Amino acid sequence: MLHWDSLWTNIHLATMTDGYGEINDAALAVRDGKIVWLGERNALPPNYSVTTQHDGAGCWVTPGLIDCHTHLVYAGNRSNEFEARLNGVSYETIARQGGGILSTVTATRAATEDELLQATLPRLRALLSEGVTTLEIKSGYGLDLPSEARLLRVARRIGREFPVRVKTTFLGAHALPAEYAGRPDDYITLVCEHMLPALVAEELVDAVDVFCEKIGFTPAQTERVFLAAQALGLPVKLHAEQLSDQGGAALTARYHGLSADHLEYLSEEGIAAMAASGTVAVLLPGAFYFLRETQMPPVQALRAAGVKIALATDCNPGTSPLTSLLLTMNMGCTLFRLTPLEALQGVTCHAAQALGASSISGTLEVGKMADFILWKIQRPADLAYHIGANSLWSRVFGGRPE
Amino acid sequence: MLHWDSLWTNIHLATMTDGYGEINDAALAVRDGKIVWLGERNALPPNYSVTTQHDGAGCWVTPGLIDCHTHLVYAGNRSNEFEARLNGVSYETIARQGGGILSTVTATRAATEDELLQATLPRLRALLSEGVTTLEIKSGYGLDLPSEARLLRVARRIGREFPVRVKTTFLGAHALPAEYAGRPDDYITLVCEHMLPALVAEELVDAVDVFCEKIGFTPAQTERVFLAAQALGLPVKLHAEQLSDQGGAALTARYHGLSADHLEYLSEEGIAAMAASGTVAVLLPGAFYFLRETQMPPVQALRAAGVKIALATDCNPGTSPLTSLLLTMNMGCTLFRLTPLEALQGVTCHAAQALGASSISGTLEVGKMADFILWKIQRPADLAYHIGANSLWSRVFGGRPE
Ligand SMILES: [Zn+2]
Ligand SMILES: [Zn+2]
Repeated sequence: MLHWDSLWTNIHLATMTDGYGEINDAALAVRDGKIVWLGERNALPPNYSVTTQHDGAGCWVTPGLIDCHTHLVYAGNRSNEFEARLNGVSYETIARQGGGILSTVTATRAATEDELLQATLPRLRALLSEGVTTLEIKSGYGLDLPSEARLLRVARRIGREFPVRVKTTFLGAHALPAEYAGRPDDYITLVCEHMLPALVAEELVDAVDVFCEKIGFTPAQTERVFLAAQALGLPVKLHAEQLSDQGGAALTARYHGLSADHLEYLSEEGIAAMAASGTVAVLLPGAFYFLRETQMPPVQALRAAGVKIALATDCNPGTSPLTSLLLTMNMGCTLFRLTPLEALQGVTCHAAQALGASSISGTLEVGKMADFILWKIQRPADLAYHIGANSLWSRVFGGRPE
Repeated sequence: MLHWDSLWTNIHLATMTDGYGEINDAALAVRDGKIVWLGERNALPPNYSVTTQHDGAGCWVTPGLIDCHTHLVYAGNRSNEFEARLNGVSYETIARQGGGILSTVTATRAATEDELLQATLPRLRALLSEGVTTLEIKSGYGLDLPSEARLLRVARRIGREFPVRVKTTFLGAHALPAEYAGRPDDYITLVCEHMLPALVAEELVDAVDVFCEKIGFTPAQTERVFLAAQALGLPVKLHAEQLSDQGGAALTARYHGLSADHLEYLSEEGIAAMAASGTVAVLLPGAFYFLRETQMPPVQALRAAGVKIALATDCNPGTSPLTSLLLTMNMGCTLFRLTPLEALQGVTCHAAQALGASSISGTLEVGKMADFILWKIQRPADLAYHIGANSLWSRVFGGRPE
């Protein structure tokens, strides 16, 4: 006799194990927060008992969505800069007035842990309401040890207090803080020798990231951070090839990085290196859209090389004030010509791989955490097709429907 | 002694009467579903009584949003075509298989009135949840009298059964139905002499629209429809200059049209004519985005000429499956370089003008209907800045909070 905590029937599954992995008229059973059985309803074993039965109302069920690249935790608001720019004020003037990323750093440094959490909640709730059950959160708006630590503590707290699994990423090398102006290498030393070890000691860091770009840090500085991460046994990832080809993706692949992200200017060599190392390509169409970029990431070449493609919001106040992963899926299709299947893989199984979380999430399979979403849709492609709709009917986290 | 039904305090107003028309620390009073007093809280008269007091929790209050161009009512689902196209299937193949707009016509003709309403509800709810209180709905997926009438009856029913004011538009000249293939002028005769009078007799038509384009109807055919509308005393509007310059905007202006919509290929002459006639320019960035157009509407020239600019979703299954007017505002700014103020005017006061509804909606003014939205935002520009967020805190329709 099998004993299950709960059983969903009257559902169709998109397991995402092999393409959509569609199973029509399916059933899915949960015990102790994990998936313990799934398949065609007709194939249910004869000998089970279940505490709670759920009627899925004919919904499609997908794995819980995964947003694998966000800068969700920050204070301040830059809609004033958005408005000023559209009224013709130059970037230079805004920067001179303390605007840009440093305004977010100033606000974030000034905020208490509670204030940071409060500022983050509307963004968090928007993502959760659309079915996100796993979320990456990067630091990078503190740029000194106490502020980066505070930001990452808020990220950890979100994972404890809300129904979402959080992966933290230390992005100390996001921008050069004003107090290190003209001394980027000194700042990288601070990041590698002071900030990273202290944050790791507090168990605040699941991975390490760098903004490698002409307007960010050089490949040599990036490699110093990667070496420090490697010495501490932490996986790396990179903001790579967003505005120019710095060879960042190949560098990331050399360090067996989880992912290289953005990739508009990715070279053939970068693609080959990512394919060889199994590094996931995380595309961020929200930033492409918001910055009105025209150089598309090399989607066809990535496909041809067998590089797995993920999609994420890149939620941040400067270049992607986007809190909808469903809209990100549509942007992936509309702007980058991904198929709806690729878009859904990009926020489920491939996003899980980009976070090193494939063993517990990203697909509907026996043994994985019971994080899944019931959608009132006619077919899985609807999720990428609609713009600005939310067809979520029920969200289940660790087996508990909300 | 003044007697009010309800009073909101602890709010800031964006009245939209002159720019944002900001009033900080304001109050707003309602009686019999209309705004009867608004201003600074300090200026409240000493002698009033009120049945219900509302604490606005520091929210910003704007007029209820107005989506002035939608094709909201239809049956069927074209996510399968979206998916096929992204998998490399050509438009021609899809059309040969009965796809494209005619698949929506087939599904809409086959649907009962109840089925049509049910199919529309998710789209309607999405718009309402983001603060839309006035909505235009076009016909154009029936293309025969019984089906167009059914569609417009559903639109009227939405206005009766849901907290939203609906303006109907007869768009019989949307596409050529299969049974009139090769005989567009005969179809226009049907539209003008048979369909329009019958629909007007049933009081289903508030305005008349045509799709004037190389792949739609000619300016001469458009004018026949405008003449028929004029004879019945109905205002006109036009799908104009979306893919090519047909002189549609100038034609619309000649008939004192409410609006000309799309306008990517609008000429200087068209702009001058619209300015002279007071015809509103309705921009539809969702279709521009979804079709990956690159020709921008002449925003700067429209501004310079003093033409009022509105924004709408153009919600339709083929070229703009968009149900977020807030996202439309961001697209207006990001893609068309409108300012956040212009974007908000575009979905309030200017959209009201595009529907001939300025006397009752579009601004917060004494005497207008008490349709307004409380937003949990720091400043009005936040509404256009955020992508995929919904900061709605309370929706008030005809004075009733929901
Ligand atoms: Zn980023
Ligand atoms: Zn339209």
